[in-house]
Formats: sequence, structure tokens, C-alpha cells
Amino acid sequence: MINIAILGFGTVGSGVAEVLTTNGALIDQRVNQPVSLKYILDLRDFPDSPYAQHFIKDFSIIENDPEVDIVVETIGGATVALDYTTRALKAGKSVVTSNKELVATHGYDLLQLAREHGANYLFEASVGGGIPILRPLTSCLAANQLTQITGILNGTTNYILTRMIRAGLTFEQALKEAQDNGYAERDPSADVDGHDACRKICILAALAFGQHVYPEQVPTQGIRQITLADVAYADSCGCKIKLLGRAIRQEDGKICAFVAPHLLYGENPLAGVEDVFNAIAVNGNAIGDVMFYGQGAGKLPTASAVVADVIDLAKDLKHSRRNQWGPGSPDLVVSSDILSSRWYVRVNTTLSRARELFGDLQPLARGGAPAGEIAFLTGPMTEPQVREKLSGLSVGSLLRVLD
Amino acid sequence: MINIAILGFGTVGSGVAEVLTTNGALIDQRVNQPVSLKYILDLRDFPDSPYAQHFIKDFSIIENDPEVDIVVETIGGATVALDYTTRALKAGKSVVTSNKELVATHGYDLLQLAREHGANYLFEASVGGGIPILRPLTSCLAANQLTQITGILNGTTNYILTRMIRAGLTFEQALKEAQDNGYAERDPSADVDGHDACRKICILAALAFGQHVYPEQVPTQGIRQITLADVAYADSCGCKIKLLGRAIRQEDGKICAFVAPHLLYGENPLAGVEDVFNAIAVNGNAIGDVMFYGQGAGKLPTASAVVADVIDLAKDLKHSRRNQWGPGSPDLVVSSDILSSRWYVRVNTTLSRARELFGDLQPLARGGAPAGEIAFLTGPMTEPQVREKLSGLSVGSLLRVLD
Repeated sequence: MINIAILGFGTVGSGVAEVLTTNGALIDQRVNQPVSLKYILDLRDFPDSPYAQHFIKDFSIIENDPEVDIVVETIGGATVALDYTTRALKAGKSVVTSNKELVATHGYDLLQLAREHGANYLFEASVGGGIPILRPLTSCLAANQLTQITGILNGTTNYILTRMIRAGLTFEQALKEAQDNGYAERDPSADVDGHDACRKICILAALAFGQHVYPEQVPTQGIRQITLADVAYADSCGCKIKLLGRAIRQEDGKICAFVAPHLLYGENPLAGVEDVFNAIAVNGNAIGDVMFYGQGAGKLPTASAVVADVIDLAKDLKHSRRNQWGPGSPDLVVSSDILSSRWYVRVNTTLSRARELFGDLQPLARGGAPAGEIAFLTGPMTEPQVREKLSGLSVGSLLRVLD
Repeated sequence: MINIAILGFGTVGSGVAEVLTTNGALIDQRVNQPVSLKYILDLRDFPDSPYAQHFIKDFSIIENDPEVDIVVETIGGATVALDYTTRALKAGKSVVTSNKELVATHGYDLLQLAREHGANYLFEASVGGGIPILRPLTSCLAANQLTQITGILNGTTNYILTRMIRAGLTFEQALKEAQDNGYAERDPSADVDGHDACRKICILAALAFGQHVYPEQVPTQGIRQITLADVAYADSCGCKIKLLGRAIRQEDGKICAFVAPHLLYGENPLAGVEDVFNAIAVNGNAIGDVMFYGQGAGKLPTASAVVADVIDLAKDLKHSRRNQWGPGSPDLVVSSDILSSRWYVRVNTTLSRARELFGDLQPLARGGAPAGEIAFLTGPMTEPQVREKLSGLSVGSLLRVLD
């Protein structure tokens, strides 16, 4: 018998309870012994819940119960969740989480702590919701020197961009629709300003390249400044605008990591990823390009990933999963300024002036453009180079084109 | 020190040697001890190969060498490969393979044999080349009752269909181009008649649903009969033609499995999978839809998957991977005749006659259609129903539409 405690009965926590119940027979069979939900910790009361008899409010009951083998942390944030995770690991209990903020900010320390106490800390659900990505990255792609990760990592922003592209909604209208549909929070900044995507690319980079990458090391730009004019110009050259988290290994082992909206050509498989779906493309020196696609959020998909980690642990509690990475360092992450690419520019000037500045460029057109506005794609250059050429001009938009 | 023997120095076998060499330091680090290539078995001589000192011609040397821990079988076929795999497993050596024919026809017996002898039999590379799919199916999606698998499982046919769609080549022209580019064999029947895709859907179905599915149980139709007329009609309704392997779990636990060309709407992520790429969509009751995408063949991508299995084994040789499934049975697979869907029909008759037969239908048009030819999409019905309505007519093409 394997006993589980769930911390936090929100969307993901209640989904975990539901999956453990609905697919209970199948899970017991896969683990080869019963997997039982013993406690649910939540400060609120749920008298009408089918799990009512499992609720407790005092974490020390879980911490001190030797029967609890696996703790599922779905509280979120990096305060109470950090405290409980630390205490659970110190008590020798393995912890499974969907908490990207905690893993991105304290992952190295918590993995070390797990190892010291003969426990494991697993977090498949922290990136890409239900999409299997972290385990494939560390096991199925283990024969590769990984070189690059490119991900649509946030479903809310991808929904907003999809609605801008497909329905012609403005950013504000699409955001409101996302909020009305429950895809965006009342305070949407963690999503639309790119912080959520930033945490996820940090976790992916750490697993792929072996050292902790901290969110504050990763320049992050969201999608608030994207306009319907940009969407129309992108469409005119067969491109879609997508918010990407990127991590690129450099020859010297350093990592170029950043989050920013990009123009993607329609042939790129990531360009077809719509609505709240996520996708992560990985490049390795043997495998070439692979892509993982699915629902990046949502109650049951995320719970599916959490319970997969629970099943993995339950099959063999003490076996080390070796999902370790090394400590971070202040000079590990290098600026995306070194990265040459084509650029999309929307600017108030004349095409002849733009040609003087950029030489060979690809002009773009849209219906209803105001007088004086032009847009074009540049040749390959770095961000400092493109910004220098544009200095003194009134730049409406500047976005990198994904090669 | 973990010692490896490679059986067969063809495309995949030589790729395995190359990956073990190129990424050797990284692999040793991930396994935590040296992984060493000890033997390569091949009947041919390779005096100029960098691995020349490893070549042998007598399998019994490998079979009887207690230092050999892992045997990599990349011979292909189900004769010599079956003999050597059986003997290696009986000698307690774990076997890794990319041989889909052997796994699809003898997988159950070989998995049993492995278990009896404390060894493992792994075959990630047998489906989807380098794409991580089998391990995610059994571990990352373990919390789900899987319901459906839909795959573009053969790169050669996908290349041919892509060239028909994009470049307007006939099937014969596209096949010749594929052969000239090394994407298709001189005898292309294993690919273009669907047998390769059939073996792969058998392996996927067995892992997903837990019982061996034999290739002869799976009705298989290839792409020889697809014409440019079909491509044009499909395009007129926003569809692409793709060869799909499908396995659908029925309520009673039986499996509806088949291989056939389908019309896919452009919004379906599988519709955007082009050239030699493969993709596999999986549906589970918690996770919803996920998709895995990448190079389904090729020397290094396939070798990447083989070496990932080698690394997994080398980390812990005797630990059972539990990638077992149960025996097959004659009545496990049910006919796709039960499956209702829309149909694409190209037929020589009049639209008014078609409307008499089908009631509500969606007429399709193409430039240059000969007099008397019509095409349309039907409403949802089974194959016996659509065939009965068409009986007596001269049917040019009948393809299922993927919902």
C-alpha cells in the first residue's frame, strides 16, 4: 500500500484526487499494489466533497505520519509550498509538484535536499501541463547533446494571440474573452508579461543543460505591445506571432535564454499550435528536431502528469530518479544580443529611408495602414545592430523572426 | 564498465556506433560508468571502418562472453534476428532493437523470455524512429486509460503524399523521387502498401492497451491508389490526404485497429506533418490529446532512440522495465466496419443521383475534372453503409475523413 497526501485542493489538487479515483484500478495494477489517498491538506472546508473524510488543516500530521510515502504539492507559490516541501523531503517523503515557480526558483536546493534524505522530487506537471516533456528530455533523449529548446509554454497568451489572429480581436478584447472563459486570471500579468513562460524555460534549460537557470537571469518580454497591425503584417508574409521561451546552448557551455514574441513561418510546426495548446520543440545532435504537443494547462491534463510521477515513484520509492542538475552561476546565461536573426520592424518612416538603413529588406503591406507607417523584414543581424539602425526613428514594433 | 555488442552494421547499426562514439563522454556521465562498444557482428568486412577491430562474424562469441551486458539488434527481419535475440535473452543479456517486424510478430514471446531470464527487451526505436513515444506511453501517460492512437507512422509514404500535394507529382513520379533521394527502397511495397505502418500500430496498440496485436489482424491499405484528382478534391475542402495507422479502444476492451489513407482537415495538427516526418497523436481519459512529432527514420535519429534504451538499461541492468503486454487472441481486434465517420467519395455519376443515394452531402470541385466525375463528402456512416449506397456505381476513390 502506497499512501498519498495532497497539499492544496485547488484546480490541480482536486484533479489529482479525481484521477486517482477514476483510474484507481488501472493505477493499482500498474504499480502492482494499492495506491491510496490518505490526506488532503487545505485551510478551507469541503463538507460536501466525496473526499471529505481525508481533509486536514495541520501539515505536521502528514510530516509525522510514517505511512505517508508521497506528498503531492499543488499549493503553488514559493512561500508555504517551500516550507512544506522542505519539511516533507527532510522527513524522507518524496514530493511531486506542478509548482513551476517553486521549481524554477528553488529547484536546485530541493533536489539536493531530496537526495540527502533518500527521497525524490519530481515535477513533470510544472512544464507543459499534461504534455510528457521532462521525462522524455532526461531519458528518451539521453543519447543526445541537446542544443536548443523552443517552446510555446503559456496557454493563456497563445489563446489571446490565436484570437487576435483568427477573430481580429485586439489584445484587450482577447484578454477579456480569455478571462471570461477562465483561461486567464483577473490579474493576468504572470501570463501576459511572460513570467510563467520564463519559469518554464528555466526548468527546461536546467534539465537539458545541467545547471540551474534562475528566472531573474532570463530577459522576459510579454505580448501586451502586440497590435492587430503586427498580426496583419505577419500574415502578409505567411507568419504567425507566437510567444516563445527559448534556450540555446553555446559552444562554451553557456546558455542563451529569453522569452519574447516572435514571428514564425507557417511551415514551422510550432506555428500551427493554437488556442490554449502548448508545444515544445527540442533539438539534439543525433535526433534532430522533435516536438511535444498537448494541453499545457487544465485540471485533468495537469493532474495526469502529476499522477504519472506518483505512479513512477510508487513503483520503486527509494530508487533515485537522477533528475538532478548542478548549481547556477551568475555568468551562466548570456544575452540574446549575440543571437543573429531576421527582424520584423514596424516604423514610421519612408521605405527609401529604410532601404538606406537596412539595404536589402522585404517590405510588407496591410490594408488600412496609416500614412507614414511601413513594415518590413530585415536580413540577419543582432538586436544591437537593428536597434542602432532604428535609432532616432519612431518604432512601433520590433520582433525577432524565428529561423 | 558496460559492454555493448551491435548485431548488423547497416544504417541504424553504424549510427549506433557513431552516437556511442560522438556522445561517449556525455553517455558515460549519464550512466555513471563507461559504456564500451565491444563487438560488431556483420558478415561483411569493413577493413577501413574506425571500428574495424570490433568486427566478428560468429554470434556465439557474443552469446558466450559474460562481459557483454547489452545486445543491440539492428539486423531487421524476423529470421536471423529472432534466433540471435532469443539466444541473447536466454543468455541473460538485455536486448535493444529498432526491428519493428520482430517486435510486431514475436514481441509477446520475446518479452516473456526476457522476464524469465532476468533481462529486458526494449524497442523505442521500432516506432517513430527517434521520436520518444513508447516510453512516454507507458510512463508519462500511465495515469490514463488510453482511448485512441492515430499516427503518421511511415516517412516514405508521407514524403510521397507531401510531394503529390505540394509539387503536383503523380504517385509514380513522387515514388521515383523518393527512391532517388534514398527515402524509399527499390522494392517499396513494405512502405507504400502500408505494412510498415501496420507493424508500428500493432506495437503501439499492444503497449497502450496491454495485449499483443498481430499484423495479420490489422486490415491494411496503402497509398498506391491515391491520385492527383483526390489530392485536388481534398484541397478544395481544406483537407490533406495522410496515411494513418489507428487503434481505438472499444468499451468492451476490444481494439479497432487498421491502416488506411484518410482525409484530414487542415486544423488537425497531424495535417501539418510533412515530408519524412512522423507524428503520433494519443488520447487518454485524463490528458486529452497529446502529439509527438519528429523524424521517423534516418540513421542518427533512430540511433538516438536505440542509445537512449541502452543508457536506460546501463543505469540499472537488472531492474525490470515492465514494458510487458499480455498474449493476443483471435477475437481481440474488431473490424473498422463498426466505425462511423464522414467519407470522401469520387465516383462517375451525377450529383442528383448522389443526392438521391446520400441525402445531405458536400459537393467538391476541381479544375479539369472529366465529364461524369463527381466528388463529395458524405455525412457520418459506416463503411458497409457507404459501400452499399455506392454499389453498382463506378467508384474512383473512397477514403475515410478523420473527425
